[in-house]
Amino acid sequence: MKIALCQINYHIGNFDYNVAQVIKSLKQAREDGADLAVFAELSISGYPPRDFLDFNDFINRCEFAVSLIAAECIDIAAIIGAPVFNKTGKGKRLFNAALFLNNGRIEQVAHKALLPNYDIFDEYRYFEPGRDFHVINFKSERIALTICEDLWNVGAEQLYTFSPMEKLETQHPTLMINIAASPFNASQAETRRSVLKENVAIYEIPLLYVNHVGAQTELLFDGGSSVLASDGSIAAELAYFDEDYLIIDSDALKTGKYSENKSDYSRIQLIHDALIMGIRNYFSKLGFNKAILGLSGGIDSAVVLVLAARALGPENVWGVLLPSRFSSEHSVSDAIELSENLGTAHEIISIEEPFSSIQNVLSDLFRDLPFGLAEENMQARTRAVILMALSNKFGHILLNTSNKSEAAVGYGTLYGDMCGGLSVIGDVYKTDVFELARFINKDGTVIPENIINKPPSAELRPDQKDSDSLPEYDLLDQVLYQYIEAFKGPDEIVALGFDKTLVARILRLVNLNEYKRHQTPPILRISSKAFGMGRRMPIVAKYLG
Amino acid sequence: MKIALCQINYHIGNFDYNVAQVIKSLKQAREDGADLAVFAELSISGYPPRDFLDFNDFINRCEFAVSLIAAECIDIAAIIGAPVFNKTGKGKRLFNAALFLNNGRIEQVAHKALLPNYDIFDEYRYFEPGRDFHVINFKSERIALTICEDLWNVGAEQLYTFSPMEKLETQHPTLMINIAASPFNASQAETRRSVLKENVAIYEIPLLYVNHVGAQTELLFDGGSSVLASDGSIAAELAYFDEDYLIIDSDALKTGKYSENKSDYSRIQLIHDALIMGIRNYFSKLGFNKAILGLSGGIDSAVVLVLAARALGPENVWGVLLPSRFSSEHSVSDAIELSENLGTAHEIISIEEPFSSIQNVLSDLFRDLPFGLAEENMQARTRAVILMALSNKFGHILLNTSNKSEAAVGYGTLYGDMCGGLSVIGDVYKTDVFELARFINKDGTVIPENIINKPPSAELRPDQKDSDSLPEYDLLDQVLYQYIEAFKGPDEIVALGFDKTLVARILRLVNLNEYKRHQTPPILRISSKAFGMGRRMPIVAKYLG
Repeated sequence: MKIALCQINYHIGNFDYNVAQVIKSLKQAREDGADLAVFAELSISGYPPRDFLDFNDFINRCEFAVSLIAAECIDIAAIIGAPVFNKTGKGKRLFNAALFLNNGRIEQVAHKALLPNYDIFDEYRYFEPGRDFHVINFKSERIALTICEDLWNVGAEQLYTFSPMEKLETQHPTLMINIAASPFNASQAETRRSVLKENVAIYEIPLLYVNHVGAQTELLFDGGSSVLASDGSIAAELAYFDEDYLIIDSDALKTGKYSENKSDYSRIQLIHDALIMGIRNYFSKLGFNKAILGLSGGIDSAVVLVLAARALGPENVWGVLLPSRFSSEHSVSDAIELSENLGTAHEIISIEEPFSSIQNVLSDLFRDLPFGLAEENMQARTRAVILMALSNKFGHILLNTSNKSEAAVGYGTLYGDMCGGLSVIGDVYKTDVFELARFINKDGTVIPENIINKPPSAELRPDQKDSDSLPEYDLLDQVLYQYIEAFKGPDEIVALGFDKTLVARILRLVNLNEYKRHQTPPILRISSKAFGMGRRMPIVAKYLG
Repeated sequence: MKIALCQINYHIGNFDYNVAQVIKSLKQAREDGADLAVFAELSISGYPPRDFLDFNDFINRCEFAVSLIAAECIDIAAIIGAPVFNKTGKGKRLFNAALFLNNGRIEQVAHKALLPNYDIFDEYRYFEPGRDFHVINFKSERIALTICEDLWNVGAEQLYTFSPMEKLETQHPTLMINIAASPFNASQAETRRSVLKENVAIYEIPLLYVNHVGAQTELLFDGGSSVLASDGSIAAELAYFDEDYLIIDSDALKTGKYSENKSDYSRIQLIHDALIMGIRNYFSKLGFNKAILGLSGGIDSAVVLVLAARALGPENVWGVLLPSRFSSEHSVSDAIELSENLGTAHEIISIEEPFSSIQNVLSDLFRDLPFGLAEENMQARTRAVILMALSNKFGHILLNTSNKSEAAVGYGTLYGDMCGGLSVIGDVYKTDVFELARFINKDGTVIPENIINKPPSAELRPDQKDSDSLPEYDLLDQVLYQYIEAFKGPDEIVALGFDKTLVARILRLVNLNEYKRHQTPPILRISSKAFGMGRRMPIVAKYLG
């Protein structure tokens, strides 16, 4: 049987667009002689639709969209993901469904049984788990159709009490199809391959896996839809970070031998490409094309400028230098050199006059109190007022340039440098920002070496360096990783060899600054635990704080 | 049997404090001759601990805290809520447990079976549902012990496929005890009473219900712990918005007749008292006592000033007037009159000089482009820079004064008037802000009548009125309510008699401004659907937008 894998970049809630893309692929697949075209989980609505699912109106629009696609399923069948009403009278009001469309109508429905509800996932919020399992008899195949997490209850620590494939196996399937919405992180491709392989090893039949591609605000979907032969080899892997389409012959998968056809991205290239896709889709799906950002002459804004220029084109990115009395000369010259290397426009606006005028109106109250944090923050906030004024006046979206290390310990000014519509590198530790800069420069200098080599500084008072207030980033990032990604407590981290006082101080800073992160822009997610929707912490609490 | 109901204001993650409060009540109960003292759901950790639950270190600290309390359970038993590890080897790693402590140790454990996972609840994120049900035989009673949601699967639309009480009933319990963490909204008390009564009507035994009281960031717990006799009458209801303690005799509940002992708060008084508790606990649990806010002379900041003064004492609240060239004279005089009525300090700082200086540094770029949104936002942001500078310099927390109607349609400036550590009235529609003002003035003028009666205006350009940009609030709030609280789509709202173009415009504004609400402070929740953790919407989407 010939099956088309359709890897599409959907837009949440944009039914006209999603239906048009699906029908276009469906027609192509029929032309190419496919018997069946497979689309991703919740492809009708885009993933994740979040609380739009609470609206009957939204579900009705999904149903209507499905009916439009079903009508096109003549001389070709399709598998598509959509939310459907739970009509059993008990439990949550919806199922997360995979619909088998054939002969112009919905012929069979599979409900997702294992509902991820951790990190960025909230599926129990909306869906009742499926409890009935039936293979789909279609042409020469008996298809065991599952949805994403349904295949993930394998390995040592099982999050669920059973696996849907155990039920389906009793009906002697000849082929597994899994439709997914599995977001990217820098180690996800490896994990995903091993989960898929483990299923093939257990059930000994081929597996077709169709994933989303594209960014949905902070969530990045890398694609990488896959075809696994009965022997567990990867017969094909679709594109990363781009739409793709492939027709395979399911019979060949049962006997054929394949070399491992898989991508060989390095970790840092995955991050680089993922962030570019994240910026590009954020703008395109919002209907914007121009970005603005503050250029400090430091490495964070330099890396964001490069990524933005690569995502949107240098002609659409505007760097603004906002020097103060504390800015070093090289900050300005380095930032200009970077802009010229990239071909992006830049502007220089001194913040001296507005900063002084704010100091002036506060002088009666501040009297002779020493220069301190308030004055540092005033500079960062004055810059934000100017950047947002330009954004409002000319229609640019402000890109935030904070990195994960700063965001973690609160080394940033709320309503100052923490502003922006999108945080590009807020899930990238400072040490990885350096890695990104080196990756960007691998074929020649884009980011001036001086930007990479000088000691990081906020330049908000004379001769300031990050290391005055923070541990060295090499050390800081290791402790942060153990706490944030590995969920280790203070004793466990100290047991790894880190200094007890240092660990206590870092963890305290992370927890005390939850209130700042609560008000930051969405952060492109490239790790297994990013700040934002996947990490939900109380603000008014006292744990390690 | 004599049972003490202990209604306590816990602090999330503050184990020392929580344990001390529990042991204090336990000793009191023993002195008062109680056989059993009952505490709320997850009382050990505070509720909701959110992703702290992902840390073994946090759970270990919970276990240690329980051991300290168990050691005190000599000559008295206790029921207390805590997270415990799931040692079955399958499923989520924790249970949400009610522990029966007696003779210095944990004698019995009940696991929560119905895990709320909607609105502000995320319990499937952490917990495996309980599947075993055993009554607790203690002295003269056979206790059916359940946790909060376990009792809520009653009525017409059942969210779960079974009810734990159905299982427990087969073991012939003589008394129901439910420990809860049930957050407040303005209609919650009525709903809660009817759920409790429905359980008593079905199972025909008395019910003791112990809830949390106090604020945990945005979530407000109103208390209202209750005692229901076998005949369904409310024998006692504990305090609202305050800690409380009561000893009852369970035998008397089986035969006695009670008049309905319940509070008779009006809806607006509930909101008023809830918001005051929310402000007070936010500050006290963070270890702050001083608030600052911008006073525009309008009704929103006036109401917030009153609530803050009542929560923190007028001596701890600082109102700052920040007039511009567009501020009317009465704005300044009304705000001063209000401050004087309350006895709060006030300051007047003109934003003219900093606003002009920002315009000045942008003049080369803005040239002769007309005055517009950018200039309006610049004023709001200049005010924010000044307020935050004062906050940073003198240690005040900035209170946000946006109301729910503005927050809904995006009528506010990000990084301007949308700043603050806490949004006090961000879940209060404008029409209810007027109600609150009238309630505050019921025994004499606190808020000058002119503030209540003048047409709302942002005063960011000459002769501006809210009604220039927005529908009248009476109309706007009705449409917003149908969309936000009632989940109605455009066609359903139009069917209620609202104009189609108006409805489309309002819903579009709500959805387009998701990005602004993403970056706002936590909002004290007083409705069944507040912006924030209980309403999770995609930003980059196209639904009704």
